[in-house]
Order: sequence, then C-alpha cells, then structure tokens
Amino acid sequence: MTDSAALPVIIDCDPGHDDALALLLAVGDPRLRLLGVTTVAGNQTLDKTTVNALKVLALAGAAEVPVAAGCDKPLVGDLTVADDIHGASGLDGPDLDVPVAEVSGEHAVGLMRRLIVEPAEPVTLIATGPLTNVASLLHIHPEVTSNLERIVFMGGSTDRGNTTPYGEFNIVTDPEAADIVLRCGVPITMIGLNVTHQALATTEIIAEFEGMGTRLGTVCAELMTFFASTYLREFGFQHPPVHDPIAVAAVLEPSLVQTVIAPVAVELTGTHTRGATVVDLHRRTPYRPNADVAVGLNVDGFWRLLMSAVRRLNKSA
Amino acid sequence: MTDSAALPVIIDCDPGHDDALALLLAVGDPRLRLLGVTTVAGNQTLDKTTVNALKVLALAGAAEVPVAAGCDKPLVGDLTVADDIHGASGLDGPDLDVPVAEVSGEHAVGLMRRLIVEPAEPVTLIATGPLTNVASLLHIHPEVTSNLERIVFMGGSTDRGNTTPYGEFNIVTDPEAADIVLRCGVPITMIGLNVTHQALATTEIIAEFEGMGTRLGTVCAELMTFFASTYLREFGFQHPPVHDPIAVAAVLEPSLVQTVIAPVAVELTGTHTRGATVVDLHRRTPYRPNADVAVGLNVDGFWRLLMSAVRRLNKSA
Amino acid sequence: MTDSAALPVIIDCDPGHDDALALLLAVGDPRLRLLGVTTVAGNQTLDKTTVNALKVLALAGAAEVPVAAGCDKPLVGDLTVADDIHGASGLDGPDLDVPVAEVSGEHAVGLMRRLIVEPAEPVTLIATGPLTNVASLLHIHPEVTSNLERIVFMGGSTDRGNTTPYGEFNIVTDPEAADIVLRCGVPITMIGLNVTHQALATTEIIAEFEGMGTRLGTVCAELMTFFASTYLREFGFQHPPVHDPIAVAAVLEPSLVQTVIAPVAVELTGTHTRGATVVDLHRRTPYRPNADVAVGLNVDGFWRLLMSAVRRLNKSA
Amino acid sequence: MTDSAALPVIIDCDPGHDDALALLLAVGDPRLRLLGVTTVAGNQTLDKTTVNALKVLALAGAAEVPVAAGCDKPLVGDLTVADDIHGASGLDGPDLDVPVAEVSGEHAVGLMRRLIVEPAEPVTLIATGPLTNVASLLHIHPEVTSNLERIVFMGGSTDRGNTTPYGEFNIVTDPEAADIVLRCGVPITMIGLNVTHQALATTEIIAEFEGMGTRLGTVCAELMTFFASTYLREFGFQHPPVHDPIAVAAVLEPSLVQTVIAPVAVELTGTHTRGATVVDLHRRTPYRPNADVAVGLNVDGFWRLLMSAVRRLNKSA
Repeated sequence: MTDSAALPVIIDCDPGHDDALALLLAVGDPRLRLLGVTTVAGNQTLDKTTVNALKVLALAGAAEVPVAAGCDKPLVGDLTVADDIHGASGLDGPDLDVPVAEVSGEHAVGLMRRLIVEPAEPVTLIATGPLTNVASLLHIHPEVTSNLERIVFMGGSTDRGNTTPYGEFNIVTDPEAADIVLRCGVPITMIGLNVTHQALATTEIIAEFEGMGTRLGTVCAELMTFFASTYLREFGFQHPPVHDPIAVAAVLEPSLVQTVIAPVAVELTGTHTRGATVVDLHRRTPYRPNADVAVGLNVDGFWRLLMSAVRRLNKSA
Repeated sequence: MTDSAALPVIIDCDPGHDDALALLLAVGDPRLRLLGVTTVAGNQTLDKTTVNALKVLALAGAAEVPVAAGCDKPLVGDLTVADDIHGASGLDGPDLDVPVAEVSGEHAVGLMRRLIVEPAEPVTLIATGPLTNVASLLHIHPEVTSNLERIVFMGGSTDRGNTTPYGEFNIVTDPEAADIVLRCGVPITMIGLNVTHQALATTEIIAEFEGMGTRLGTVCAELMTFFASTYLREFGFQHPPVHDPIAVAAVLEPSLVQTVIAPVAVELTGTHTRGATVVDLHRRTPYRPNADVAVGLNVDGFWRLLMSAVRRLNKSA
Repeated sequence: MTDSAALPVIIDCDPGHDDALALLLAVGDPRLRLLGVTTVAGNQTLDKTTVNALKVLALAGAAEVPVAAGCDKPLVGDLTVADDIHGASGLDGPDLDVPVAEVSGEHAVGLMRRLIVEPAEPVTLIATGPLTNVASLLHIHPEVTSNLERIVFMGGSTDRGNTTPYGEFNIVTDPEAADIVLRCGVPITMIGLNVTHQALATTEIIAEFEGMGTRLGTVCAELMTFFASTYLREFGFQHPPVHDPIAVAAVLEPSLVQTVIAPVAVELTGTHTRGATVVDLHRRTPYRPNADVAVGLNVDGFWRLLMSAVRRLNKSA
Repeated sequence: MTDSAALPVIIDCDPGHDDALALLLAVGDPRLRLLGVTTVAGNQTLDKTTVNALKVLALAGAAEVPVAAGCDKPLVGDLTVADDIHGASGLDGPDLDVPVAEVSGEHAVGLMRRLIVEPAEPVTLIATGPLTNVASLLHIHPEVTSNLERIVFMGGSTDRGNTTPYGEFNIVTDPEAADIVLRCGVPITMIGLNVTHQALATTEIIAEFEGMGTRLGTVCAELMTFFASTYLREFGFQHPPVHDPIAVAAVLEPSLVQTVIAPVAVELTGTHTRGATVVDLHRRTPYRPNADVAVGLNVDGFWRLLMSAVRRLNKSA
C-alpha cells in the first residue's frame, strides 16, 4: 500500500481507542511508510497496549509492520492507567481477533534506534502515548537526533487538561519523559487538547463509519461508541474527542493544523499542576521557543483524511 | 447617594485602571453602601495605589469614604508591579487632581476588622488586587469570618493566565494569600480571567464614556484609552479587558455572572505554575468545593450596569 | 527583680516544657527586662500555650508581665501539635496552679508592636515557637524593624531535623513565617538542633533541680522527667535536649554560643524537606549571609546560667 | 588475579580521584571478580571519565576488563561537572599513560545488562558516580533485577551534603536516577558522606602510598595530593575524604561498614534541597525501609584493606 517515496514514520503508542484510529490513518494513507510500531504503558499496561497494537495492525492488514514493546512504567513514579476511559482491555468495545503476528524480541528503544539510524532519509517519530519510550531513546542513544526529521506528539494543552485541571493524560503519566523530549533539540510539534477537543466523534461520524458496511467500519463505530460512553460518564462530553489521529494528520497534511512556535515547559514540581505543559503564547517568560504548538484545526479536513484512509483499508483488506 | 438599606461592602484594591472603574461602580450604584476602601501593593507600590484610591473617590464625590493603606509587599517573596500595564503612576492616562482627603492612620487590616465587626448585618468584602490584606485580616483576626457575608475577588482563571501562562497577576503576586483566602471557610466568589476577558472596552464603549460630556466620562475614556494601548502592546489584544468592576457587578446583580461551585486550589510550589488557580471543574481531584467560580458573563448587562453608575455620578457631582 | 538598665526583651513562645525553662531564665536573670510574653500555636493549640505561659509566669512570680495570645495556626496549611512530646496540656508532668492573671485583650501582634515601638532603646525579640506571630508582626508593621535590636529564635538545624529527617518542629510548623523572618533585614541569631541537642537534661541535671528543695525546683524536675520519657519513646534519646532556654542564654551571654554568619534559606517547596533550614556553611550557593547561626555551645556554662536563674527565683518567690 | 569463586561485580563510575581508588581496590582484591566497568558523566564529561577508567585499569594491569561508556548527561536537566574538585581532566595530578585498550562499542546499559544476565550467580553492582546508567538499565531492562545480588552506591548523606547544604554531588547530579534506583526493589546499600567523611587521606596515608616505592604507589600519592589541594581550597578540609572505595570495601568486608535499614527518599522538587537523600532514621515518615544506610565505618580496617589491594597490584604488575 505504501511505496518508497512515502514518508518514513514510526508510531510509538499505547492503544487506546484513538491510538487505534491513528494507526489506521498511518497504515491507510499511502503517503506514509510505517516502519514500525512501538508500545508503551499508558492507557493500559504494557502487555495490553502491545496486544492491542498487534490487533489493530492485523485488522488494517499490516501485520508485517514490526511491533516492539517498550517501557512498562514512567521514568519517575508509578503507572496509573486510564481504564475509566479505555476499559479493562484498553480497547473495549469491539471484539477483535487474537493477533497472529508476534511482538519483536527487541526492546522498543532498540527497534526505534535501528529504524531511525538505518534509513538514508530522515524519519518522523509520531508519539500518541506517554513519552517514556521516546525519552529513553533520546537519552540512551542521543545520536538518533541527527536522523530524526521531527517528533510529533499528541499530549499536553495550551489551556485546560483532562487528567488534572491543567494536566493532560500522556504528559501527566510521565512528565520527566516529556521534559526530555521537549528539550532534545529535534523539531517538535505538540498536538494538545486545545485542538483535539475540536475533533469530536459525533453521531454523524459514528454513523459514517457504520455505514461503510465493512468489518473495519463497524469496528471503528464500536470503538467510538464505547469511547463516547466513557467520555459522557467521566467528563459530561456529548461527543468524545479523537485525539491521537490528529498527530498523524499533522504529518500527512501540515496545513490542517495551525501552529505557533512557542516556549513549552513541563511542570515537574507543582503540587496541583505536575505534568502541565506550560505554553508561553504571549512570551511572558524568558524561555526560548522549542515547539510548534497546535492552536487550530481544520476539523472537516481532518475527518475527510481519516475517512479516506479507512475506506482505502476497506478495499485493500 | 446610598442609604442604610443598601448592602454594606468594603473594597480592597490596588488601583489600577480597572480598579478605578470598580470603585466608581460601587459608589455610583445606590444598592451598595461602601463602608471603606483599603489599599494593597500590586499594580503599583502601596503609596501609589493609596493615592490613586483617594483620587478616584474624590472624583466620584465620595471623599468621605475612609481609606486605609495595608501591606506593602506579598507574604512571601518580593513585589513585582504591573507598570507595563498600568504605567508609572498605576493610573496613567488622565490628569487627576491631588486628593484633599487623607489616608487613615489605621492599618488596612485594622480598618477592615472594625468595619466588618461593627455592623449588625453581614458585610461583603470585594477584593480587586493581590489578596495580601485580606489574608492578613483572616489570619490575625479569624473572628471576622462570622460577620462576613461573602468574599468576592477578581483573580485567577479557569484556563490561561496573563502574568504567566497559567498565572493571573493578582494571584501570582501573592499565592500564599490567595491560598489563605480560599481555605478560610467564608463563601467565596472567584471572578477570573476566563470571564473578565469577555468584558472588553471596545471603541464603542470608550466613545460612550466620552459622549457623556462630563469630566468623569472623559476620565473614564482616558483611562480606557491608556489601558487599550498597553494591552495592545503587551498582549496584542485589540481591546482591553475590564476585570475588576465585574467583581462589584457580581455583588450587585449576581445573575449577570454565571458560576459553578468547584474545588479551587492555588499552586504554591510549581516551577512554572506558581500562583495558578487550579479549578477542578470536572471533579478529577479529591478536594471539596470551596468557591463559586465565574464561568459566564452577561456582557451587555455588565456594561449597562457600569454605565448607569457612571451616569448617576455625573449628575450627583 | 529587674531594673531599667537591664536589656529589654520580648518572648514569643508556645510552652512547652523547654519554653517554660526559657521563661524562667528570662525572668530569673536580672540582666533582662521581660517586657511581655506572646503566645502562638505550636507545641499545643493556642489556648493551651497561652494558659501555660500564664502558669509559668505565675510560678516565677512574674504575673505582672503582660501576656497576649497570637495566631492560632500557621500562615499556610494546618496546625499539627507536638502532643507526642509535650502531652495533652502542652506542659504535662507537674500539677500547676490555674493562673490568676489574665491574658491581654490585645492581639500578640499588637502587643509586640507597642512594646517594640515604645521604648527608647532597641528591643530584642526571642522566639521559641513557630514564627507565625513574629512574621505577621514584620509583615503588617514593617516599621518595627527600626527599633528591633535582634531576633533570636530557637528553630531549624544545620544538619538533621526532628519532625522530619531535615526539618525541625518550629520551622516545619510554619515555613513561610520562618522565611519572612529570615529575610526581614533585622540581625538574626538561629539556635538550631545542632547545638540544642548538646544541652541534655541528664539524670544529674534533674537531680540538681530536685535537690533545690523548692516548689520551683520540683516543677522543673517534673517537667524534665516527663520530657525525658517522651524523648526516649519517640527518638530513643537517653536524655532530652533542652532547646528553648539556649535562645535566652545566647542573649544573656553571647559568648556561650559560638556562631558563624551564613546564608540560611527555608525550603518552602520540597516534597520531603519542606521546612528544612538550608544553612550554607561552605558558601556553595549564591545567597548572601542573613543570620548568625549557632554551631557550638558551652554546655556547662549554659546549665550554670539556667540553674542560677532558677535559684534566684526560689529566693525571691 | 581473580578466580571463578570470587564475587562477580560491575563498577559503574565517573573517575574521578576516589573512583580510581575504588577501581584499584576492586582489581587488587582477589575476592572480587570485576566483570566490567561502565562510565557515566559526573565528575567530568563522559569522554573524560571513560578515558580515565581505561587509564586506571591499565595502571592496575587489568586492561582486559571491558569498559563501556554510558549516558553523557543526567535524565533531567543539564550536567555540571566537578572540575573544581577533580580538575580539567577529571583525574588531575599524576601523568598517566594514554590507554592502549579501547572502549567497547556497546552502550553501558547494554554491557551491564549482558554481564548481569549471563552469569549463573547473582551479580553485585557497585556505583560510584551519578546513577544515570544504573537507572536507565533498571528502567529499560527491569528483568535484570532477578540476577542482581545488591546495588551498593556511594552517594547521598544522612546529614549534610557537599554540592549543596543537603545535597551530595552524585545524587544532586541526577536526582531522578537516584529515585529510580532507590525504588527498584533490589537490595541497596547507601554509602553516604556521613561515613565517607571519616576516611581521610591524611599526610600519613599519602606517605604510605609514596613509601611503597612503586609507580602505582606514587600515582596514588599524587592523586591524593591533588585531591587534598582542592578539598582544602573548596571546603577548608585539612585532609580529603576518600569516598568511592568505601562502596567496594562494603562489598568485600561488610563488617567494616555499620548500617541501619531505613526509608530513603530523594528530594526531587525542593528549591534549595533538590537531590537531598532524606534518610528517616527515626521513622518519622510513613515510608517503608528501602536501603541499608551506612552509619559507621571501621576507618583503620578500611585503609588496611585498600593498602593491601594496592600492594598486591604492585607485586603483580
């Protein structure tokens, strides 16, 4: 489905309902070449997010993409999974087949290193979970930065959070990892809640998945239906926000996401704000800009892109 | 202008352009009885905010209201004034008369205590500057809480700040004072940037002041014109937000300000977030609700209220 | 017992077994003139420490010294009393008479202010409890600093603490207050655990009190016997350290206490170290010296001084 | 020099004058089998500490021991080297030969993992620098813990620090790494400044090295002479403390070091205390014991052990 002219990407993720859509978008759009998928503890424990990644790749007909498991807990402190949002499996809702493909014997950090260093052209790293694996990679193998085109991560916010008033789940789960990534010197794009909360899986969106009349469409509809139920219960949202695929969309079509370059610091020490991404939009702090921060989203364009990719997978499967 | 049936209030402030409008609203609306005004260091140093309070009261024909100066610095740390926003005098723009009335020999904490304890009916305390005086009062004289109807303060935010990405000026200036106030047990209303940024002194608003054809109207227009120039330069705002009088409006006509009751904590220890008001709207933290937090504003209603008060002062002056 | 040539002092305290000895030393030595005693919440709640101060002064025949109650809780956070060390009354052990003298109607901050501002000669302030009252005084009435000779406080440590591994009780109870005091610009002497742990009420010391054959001697012995029992149980100390009177001794005979001038910061934000006094003896930090820090004690000289004062009170009583 | 019955150890270090003595002790005592040496940034940059490790091993006739370089900076924040203490090379003083042996192509984390997992018997890991490599190993490869006998590290203190008032250099350099190590569940021994400051390289000790009449003895004397000069200048110490070899001694002859089991937390968030090891000797905190903490040292026994090892190397070289 992809060719060598396509942009080489790695996805580091913790599927997760919206991670699943991110994987589908990356596999389904021929302009990307998915070199590998690495998994991290976050939405659920590492064993569950790893199985979920294998399941989603199988569903997308991309069982050949190598999958390696990474860190099973954040750098500092203990893991708290988001089972209130993603359920006991991390991907509750549809009944997915047990994957045939197996996880790599290699550690995620080793696989990422190899996949970044080997290609002639620079690689883009997309992270949709806590940044533990990515930070470990940058810390242990700083030489990878010379062949990294960009790191695009879903995480943080320019305003309010979800896990705490100012903290978003991925960053709150491993603030030190986010700090390492944001200070690494590689070009960074941050896709925060301030834009992902615009991409809502409305009744119409779910109906569109369902209306595809395919196994994949039904799975997507079931994923979003479950996601809607937990977002309604936990946050009172009428429709659930679909965070992670926007990070993939920002790589595919940068014009879909409006960004500003700004200083972003991670709060590591606050009593009530640990894990907040402190984005200095008005340059009131002495820090230098270190990230392109998403501040706007072409919502219709995003859904068109995602639906096209899923439709393409329907046909190829 | 006021009568004994009117609601007794004290205003603790650091004028300041928008504090000035708050004082005018409190003096100009007959439903309030302004028992006294206390001043605190904030927008400018204590000596300047005190003179400014006297000037504004004189302008409003309320030179008889007692004024006492309070704390000249925050509880912890050093004072940083907002001269970038309010100018060298704290009230740059109009040329105001040197006040005839003198500041009280009493400390603000002593005056507040006396004015709260003496009346038969409970007193409402409106704070539009850093909460240093109010916190000192509550700490030294906890017995005042039994005759406090409510504390309404302008400060903080449910989302972004102005002095730092998540910190609003009044709270960042004295976070420990805000913490003391928010934990004191008296009913609290917090009027944060999330609503005050809706009350913009547009060109039409400034023209309306100017069109009154009175000394007071012209002063208001000059104040807002200066305020507009600094907000444009520092924040790129087309029109400046008029924060402080909304706290007075919320006392006068509570229905103008939509509130939700929520837990509000002040971040005291963050590296990048000290002074943030952490408002738990979705109840993701274990804390109990301790404040009515403003989340909506009837903007037209607010301006009608303010303009009526200023027009009333025009006539009585 | 004292005369006008004697050094005017105020004692701010939270009696407390060792505070009691500090008061006896101050009353019993004619070189000091005890202008007043103020009380603060600490070893026990404010009502109890206030009654205890009145009891000890009555016992010392100094019921005429004015006593004013101050703050009933620290500036930030909640009060945790040291009933594990000082018992339910704050002064468990001896059976002391209910005091005849009454507490002043004035707040401790007001009494301290008056007693400092009135005398022609500078006043020395000795604090043996949490620094809440002293900090409030300095914050509300900064003008007192011009007539303060020095503030000598028992609190903190250059090495280990007692309430937490690095935190001493008085400072841990109100770290912000200690910060305010240490930054106020008045000459400061800090008497920390590193020296007070040298002044142990050994079996011989207790026997010496008992052997005086007076009511006062017996009370002192009973106080120290109770203190010994709690220090043995809580810390495994063979003999209890007598902290507070060393602060009085340092005023009476400065040569008894060896000091070095050093930068002292109070840790306000640590997770495990809040309230630690960070004393930079080797000048490894950029901070300027702000306190004379006790690093050595003439133990025998100290006990001679204390015993002399108690013997003098025996005779005069 | 060693045999298969000897205890298998790995040393992770940042030589460093006292690290050099630690390596000599480990090579020179036949009861240890030094499987490998890994280097970390700390006393100097990674390239320098790596060359220094190779130099010292060559000097000890142990050029066959594999050496792998690890992390070039701490997990969070920037590296500050101790050139004030160890000089521009990290091992100033003697003129050492350029090493013939080369550093491994493998990363320190990979080498440590292999050396721990391969042996049948459990391996002891001795760390004498910042704990960055060890923490990365534990985080990326948590499976190693099952074959780790114990981690013994030189670092921290039960009382005062050296880099900051409460912070010791190795821990202050990478507090998060220390936190990861102290929470990893493997038995831990902490050798802190409170004991290492007892092992002073006095004039007699330096004379004993010099009097050996060998190249190695002279190098040790020159190392200690330089170390003495910087400790005198920076801390006013008459004789320099020899920290790191005590960690090796504690493995060789545990009875030389008196320990108590206690809860040890690393302060990650303090303004003035970041990197302090908070050792709860009196169990005043709710934490569970997680380390054997050195509280006493047989100083004569330690020097006898070290001198014997160096003498043995003299003969074998």
